[in-house]
This record gives sequence, structure tokens and C-alpha cells, in this order.
Amino acid sequence: MSTVNRQVCLKSRPVGMVKESDFEFGEKALPEVPEGYVLVRTEMVSIDPAMRGWLNDVKSYVPPVQIGEVMRALGVGTVVQSKVDGIKEGDRVSSILGWQNYALVPAKMAEVVPEGVSNEAALSVLGMTGRTAYFGLLDIGEPKEGETVVVSGAAGAVGSMVGQIAKIKGCRAVGIAGGADKCSWLVDELGFDAAIDYKNENLRKRLKETCPDGVDVYFDNVGGEILDTVLTRINVGARIPFCGAIANYNATEPVPGPYNYASILVNRAKVQGFIVFDYVKRYGEAMRDMGQWVSEGKLKFKVDVVDGLENAPKALNMLFDGSNTGKLIVKVA
Amino acid sequence: MSTVNRQVCLKSRPVGMVKESDFEFGEKALPEVPEGYVLVRTEMVSIDPAMRGWLNDVKSYVPPVQIGEVMRALGVGTVVQSKVDGIKEGDRVSSILGWQNYALVPAKMAEVVPEGVSNEAALSVLGMTGRTAYFGLLDIGEPKEGETVVVSGAAGAVGSMVGQIAKIKGCRAVGIAGGADKCSWLVDELGFDAAIDYKNENLRKRLKETCPDGVDVYFDNVGGEILDTVLTRINVGARIPFCGAIANYNATEPVPGPYNYASILVNRAKVQGFIVFDYVKRYGEAMRDMGQWVSEGKLKFKVDVVDGLENAPKALNMLFDGSNTGKLIVKVA
Repeated sequence: MSTVNRQVCLKSRPVGMVKESDFEFGEKALPEVPEGYVLVRTEMVSIDPAMRGWLNDVKSYVPPVQIGEVMRALGVGTVVQSKVDGIKEGDRVSSILGWQNYALVPAKMAEVVPEGVSNEAALSVLGMTGRTAYFGLLDIGEPKEGETVVVSGAAGAVGSMVGQIAKIKGCRAVGIAGGADKCSWLVDELGFDAAIDYKNENLRKRLKETCPDGVDVYFDNVGGEILDTVLTRINVGARIPFCGAIANYNATEPVPGPYNYASILVNRAKVQGFIVFDYVKRYGEAMRDMGQWVSEGKLKFKVDVVDGLENAPKALNMLFDGSNTGKLIVKVA
Repeated sequence: MSTVNRQVCLKSRPVGMVKESDFEFGEKALPEVPEGYVLVRTEMVSIDPAMRGWLNDVKSYVPPVQIGEVMRALGVGTVVQSKVDGIKEGDRVSSILGWQNYALVPAKMAEVVPEGVSNEAALSVLGMTGRTAYFGLLDIGEPKEGETVVVSGAAGAVGSMVGQIAKIKGCRAVGIAGGADKCSWLVDELGFDAAIDYKNENLRKRLKETCPDGVDVYFDNVGGEILDTVLTRINVGARIPFCGAIANYNATEPVPGPYNYASILVNRAKVQGFIVFDYVKRYGEAMRDMGQWVSEGKLKFKVDVVDGLENAPKALNMLFDGSNTGKLIVKVA
């Protein structure tokens, strides 16, 4: 075992897309492990759109990453030293590990990955992204059999789960994604009823075609013009789980809300924001259902793996230029 | 009884604030009364912000008023001829009467005004505006004792009820209104905890002062910049009943949604539109509670009466230039 911890720390707050020069690569000695902590060797870290928000110096649901701090990231790794009852060396855990080779994790933040669950699954379908899709769609979206569920960022880690869960619940699932390949994957591999390539097709026209009965649930990952267009097609009583606004995360100017905001009133619709961490007491429910659906072959997932911690900043931009499909992961160890 | 029906009909679709020339004043013979209908002599009509929306040729929760049609308006009047079981001549009814001296109303649309309820009360606290406040605040806003409820358009017909109901439910009530007189009325007469004069005070600063524990419920009547500013002060789990967007109803250009739309996500807030007509099955519940609160002196209301049907178009603009306080009514008969 190495005694050196390679770390990627925030050097300056990015303006627009992140640059490698916004981060600093450094090394630190491994820390002592206090009682109640485990030392984890990072194997993979999750790359999520929300991470771009953590880099801005604004009040949010978590404090921003401070200049000089290790970049915050979910990850999975192997316990190399444990001072926690019930977690032993060699166990795999998922937690907030950060962009570093070793992380010191307090007991209550360490979630042991069960035998038989791969690191990739623990970071995607059976991890935070899967739970985000599960609670956002089912708890906020409340889809009913026969309804139409539209999801944006549909070929992403969360969106691809949302559409499949919608199908499992007997809904019509329509995905909005950028590019013909992603759209084919959604329909041919994941069983979406339709997919709209917003980069090459007329979204308004295609929404009419693919949602002839209107939109009952719009799972919003992107905000921006796509949200505005979907708002013209929602039904009375529509539910809009507000999961993210990827279109705006790199904005350098104030971004207006949707021009069709009044559609929420006219259609007695509901827009509700949510953060997966609020559902921590119900994670078990998601794990049980999602695990079962995976084992039954009803829920498929794809990971897009980038090799090497040094490529993490570049990987983060992939979420915003649309170059990943499925769950984006950086392989560290 | 006259045999002539004076009517105010839509002549052209207004651009911006309505002009008298957008309407045409005419006369028509009184209609025959078919079975199942009552003929009502209009005594008062309600002037509501939503009416501005009914003049635009856009898809909404009701069809737009057509060119040549009598302007749609809620009203109260006396039955002069009845072919409906259970409603007799001399009964007062509230219904959609329109800007005209006589209206033919189908039985199911006629709501008999109980003895002891004045026309003014039937159009305000015990009418649609009272019910709008009641269901919007209690059903969508779900205020809990000790929470802070902020309402915009607070000196209007709906807003003034919202704050008082919030007080009855044990909440802190803060109103946003335009002008010192309105603000004094809210605090001194209606018992709001605080009022903010958005025209002469710094809204952001005053929100901090008057809502030291943040905003749990924001009852939105106005949209626009006020909504944007309130979004910076909402608490985690805030509820935003979306009742109207008075600030935008006369806009001649597309209006952006709130720049702080992302606050809905960060704070896991809920924005939900509603229309009082959706609660028709629960009107009795509102009437019972509101009637009791009025009789106990807990719920006060004010009417602002404009005389003469010919002044109805001008009255409509009063809602948007801020010159009315309380429920705006045009006295017809």
C-alpha cells in the first residue's frame, strides 16, 4: 500500500466550462485513522452534473467546495484500514470519497456495497443516480398506468433509469436526448416508446407526434429551451420533478426561467425540486425494487468509463457537451 | 322591468392595458327563457385579474372571449324569471353573468345566495375570491402553525383573505402591496404581522427583516420581479401556490420566468398552479369555514365599488395600476 495520497484540489472557481487549470494536482501523506473512521482506497468516482454547481460560491443544498479543498465526488473503494465496528478491511464501500486515491470516511457516511454488486452498479443503477430516478419519478412524478412520461437528458445516468422505471409502471416513456445513437439506444435497447433527438429534430413537432395524449409527467434534468417547449405540451394536473438544469450549469450570465412559466398555472401543474439525500431513510426501498428489476432484466444500465484521476476535470465537461452515454465514471485505482 | 338588455361586448383584442375602444356598448332584446334556465337582472359584477387573460386568443383553462361576445364576468343578481325547480323569482344568485343588465343562466351554473349574505360578500369573501384564497393557501400551501406565509397582491381581494386565513391558522403573515395606505390597512385593520410596500421600500431588505425565519409559503398573485426576489428567501420545502401573475397580464412581449427558478430545486420547493373551479365539489367546506370566521370577526373584507356598467373597462385597468384596495366590483343595477 502506497503512503502517498494523490489529490485533485480546486484551485480557482471556474467560469463557464471547467478548465484543467481550475484544479491543482498534489500529493499528501496518508492520514492517521481515528476511531469511528475507515480509510478507503478509491477505485472509481462518479461524475455528476451537480458537481458543477458545487464549484460555485453560492448558497445551495451543500456548501461549495472551497479553494484548496479536494474536489467532492461520490465514489466506491476498498477499505484498507478500519476503526469502525461492522466494517472490515477488504470491504467495499460507497461514500463521498472525492478526487483522491485515499479517503478518510466517518462510519455513518460509509455504505457497504453488498457482495455481487459491481462497483459500476453501486455508482449507477444501485447508487445515487438510480435512487434519484426512483424517488424523483415515483415520489414527485406519481406516474399512473397509461400516462405519458417525458424525460430529458434521457441517455444520461438518471434519465435512462427514469424511462425504464416509467415503462415498468405501465407508462408511455419518451426520451429527449442529443444524437441519433443515443436515441436508438433508448428505443432499441432500453425499451423507451420513442426518443427525440433535440439536436437534429424539431422538438415541438416531435413532442406532438410522440405524445399524442400530451405530457403527464416531465422529469426535468436540463431546464432551458427544452423545458420551455415541453411546457407547451403538458396536460392538466401534470407533475414536473425538477431534478436538474444541465443547460444552465455553465452559464456565465443570469439565466431566465421558462418563458412558458404561466403554463404551470393554466394547467394546474406542479413543479417540485428534490435532492436524493432527502430520501436517505427510504434508500432500502429503492435498493430492493431496483435490485429486483435489474435481476429480472427489466432495468439495464450502461457505464461510460474514463481512465485515470488526472482526466476527471475533462470528464466533468463531457456531461455538458453531450459526449457520454449512461453513467459517467472515472476509474481511479 | 325593462325589455332591453344593455351589453358590453368585446370589439377587438386589447394590446397591453385594455382601452374603452376595445369594447362595444350595445342593446339587445331580452331573450326567451327556456326550461332549466333563469333570467337574472345583474346587480353587481366582479372585476378580476383573470379577466385580462380571457381577452387573449390563447389556449387556457377557459376559452377566450370571442370578438362580438359579451364580456365574461362573475356577478350577482336577482332572478326575474325562472324555469328552474328550486329557484324562484326574487332569489339572488351568483353566476357568470357577464357585462350586461340581464343574463340567461342554466340551472347548474346558478348558485343561490343565502339570506343574510350581502351581494358584496357573495362576490368577495364568500365568493370565488374567498374560495381561491382558501383552497390555494390551505390545499396547495399547506401552512403549518408557526410558519411564515408571504402573499403578494396582499391588499387585493384574494391576497387580503390569504393573510387573514394564515393568521387564523397560527402562521406569521407578511403581505406585499403597493403603497403605504394599503400596507397600514393590512397591519392595522387585518392583523397581518408585517407589510412591505414594494413601490417605496427595498423588497429584498424588508423580506429579510420581516421574515427572519425565511419563507415557508409564498402565495403568488403577481409573478415578475417580486416572485424572483421571494425565491431568494424561501426555506427548504417551501410551497408556492401559483394563483396569478398580475405583473405579466398586460405584457406585449414574451415574459421570462423567474431568474431564480433554480431556487425551487435547491430548496426542494413546490410551485403548483390551481384554479378555483377545480374545487367545486369542496365549495361547501370553504363556505362553512369562511362564513364562521366572518361571523366571529376574524375575517374582514373591503369592497371597492365602481358605479355603472359603462365604467367596467376602466375598472379592469385599476387592478393593474394598483388603484383598488380589496374586492373590486362594478355596480350595474
